[in-house]
Amino acid sequence: MSGLKYRAIHEVKEYECDATGEMALPSLVNVMVHISGIQSAILGNTKEQMRERGLSWIIIQYQMEVNRMPVLDEQITIETQALSYNRFFTYRSFRAYDEQDKLLVEVITTFSLMNMDTRKLVQVPKDIIEPYQAEELRTLMRQPKPAVLSEGEVVAQPFRVRYLDIDANRHVNNARYLDWIINTLEVDFILAHQMESLTIKYEKEVDYGHIIESRMTISELEDGKKLSAHQIVNGGTVACSASIVWTRRN
Amino acid sequence: MSGLKYRAIHEVKEYECDATGEMALPSLVNVMVHISGIQSAILGNTKEQMRERGLSWIIIQYQMEVNRMPVLDEQITIETQALSYNRFFTYRSFRAYDEQDKLLVEVITTFSLMNMDTRKLVQVPKDIIEPYQAEELRTLMRQPKPAVLSEGEVVAQPFRVRYLDIDANRHVNNARYLDWIINTLEVDFILAHQMESLTIKYEKEVDYGHIIESRMTISELEDGKKLSAHQIVNGGTVACSASIVWTRRN
Repeated sequence: MSGLKYRAIHEVKEYECDATGEMALPSLVNVMVHISGIQSAILGNTKEQMRERGLSWIIIQYQMEVNRMPVLDEQITIETQALSYNRFFTYRSFRAYDEQDKLLVEVITTFSLMNMDTRKLVQVPKDIIEPYQAEELRTLMRQPKPAVLSEGEVVAQPFRVRYLDIDANRHVNNARYLDWIINTLEVDFILAHQMESLTIKYEKEVDYGHIIESRMTISELEDGKKLSAHQIVNGGTVACSASIVWTRRN
Repeated sequence: MSGLKYRAIHEVKEYECDATGEMALPSLVNVMVHISGIQSAILGNTKEQMRERGLSWIIIQYQMEVNRMPVLDEQITIETQALSYNRFFTYRSFRAYDEQDKLLVEVITTFSLMNMDTRKLVQVPKDIIEPYQAEELRTLMRQPKPAVLSEGEVVAQPFRVRYLDIDANRHVNNARYLDWIINTLEVDFILAHQMESLTIKYEKEVDYGHIIESRMTISELEDGKKLSAHQIVNGGTVACSASIVWTRRN
C-alpha cells in the first residue's frame, strides 16, 4: 500500500449539504473523485489523453466508513492515495479529515478502465498505472460484498434517468446511483440515523430515459443498528447493489 | 447601481457539467449564490446571524443572459454586485467572465427576506442592507415576466420532491426548479440548442414528498430561435414559471 498521495482542501458549501446540514453523500463522492482526477492530471493522465486513447476510468465499488460526515462551512482536507492494482482493477483510498486532522470518512474505491467504444473493461496499460507508484498485486484485493435484500417488506421507488444525470462522457455519473439510494429512504429515517458504513457495487450501466427501480429493505441489527440493503434494477437486471449500516443519531 | 462588488474564481468540475461538457445551469446558479453568501458574510450578514434573527434570503426571480456557458475545466471569475433595493426586494447582479475577462453570463437576481416562522416576506431591515452600499429605490425595479405557455402541445413530466432536494433550511433549493425545467426538455433538443436567455419567477414553495408537474410548451420565434415556456405546478397552483430562448448550436 505504497502509492502516491495527493491532498486538497475543500470547503463544504450549502448546495452540497442535505437537510441535516451535513455534506450529502453524492456531493462528497463527487468531490473525492474530482480530487483523484487532479492527481491523475499531475501525473500525466489528463482527461484529454485518456479520451484520445478511447479510455475512461469507471468506478466498480466503494467501501466507506464514516466517523462523522463533514458539515456546512467546514474546511475538510481530502487525501487520496493510489494503493495497488492488478490486471483489471486499481484500488485507491480517500480520507476526509477535519481541521484538527481527525479522520471523518475513509473510502476504498475500485476503479477499472473502460474502452469507450466497446464499453468493456480493458487491462490497465503499464504507462498509465506506473506514475502512481502503487503496489502491483497478483490477486484481487478482498472487498466486502453489499448485503442482499432481506426477507421483509421491499420498498420500491421508480426513478427516470434524467438529462442532468448524464455527464460529459454520456455516462450516468456514479454519484447519481447514491442519489437514488438515499432518496428511497424516508426523510424521518435519515434525520434520525447516521451512516456508519456503506458498500456499493456497480454492475451495469444505465442510460438516459431508462426507468430504474430502487429497491430497499431495512432490517434491525443486533446492537440497535439498522441495515438498509439496496438494489438499482433496470429492466429486470441489477445495475447496482449496496448496503448501508446506520446508527441512531443522538 | 452603485453597490459593493465581490469577485471569486471558480474552476468548473466534471460533476458540475452536463452531457454537452458545459456547466449545468443549476450548478452555475448554486455557485453564484454561494459567492454572494461569502460577500454577505464578509459584510457581517453571516448565515448564523440571519438564523438567529429568524430570517432567510429567498430568491424571487432570475433574469439571465448567456453569451456562452462556462465549460469543463474552465477557470471562471464570478462577480456579484448588490445593485439596489426597496422595502421588500433587493436586486443583485452576477457576471461570469472567462480568463480573458470576456463576459459569459449575466444574471439579475431579485432576493427577498423571509421570516422563517411565518414563511412570509418581511421588510428588509436597514442594518442588514446598509453594508452593501446599494442604491435605495422608491419603486420596484422593472423585470421581464416569463413567457406564458403557448397554445400548442403541452409536455408534462411529474417529479417527486426528494430528500436530497431539500437543504439545511428545509427548503427546496431554488436550483432544483431549474433541474425540473431542464429535465423536461428532450436530450436531443438540449444537445442541438444553446440557451440565450432565461427568466424564472418563484411563486410558491414546494415541500418534501409533493409530486410536482413540470409543464412545457416549445414554440418557434421569428428569427429561427425557439422559446420554451415552463410552469412548475403543485396541486393546481403554479409554484414557479419560467421561459428560455434557445438558439441552434453550430
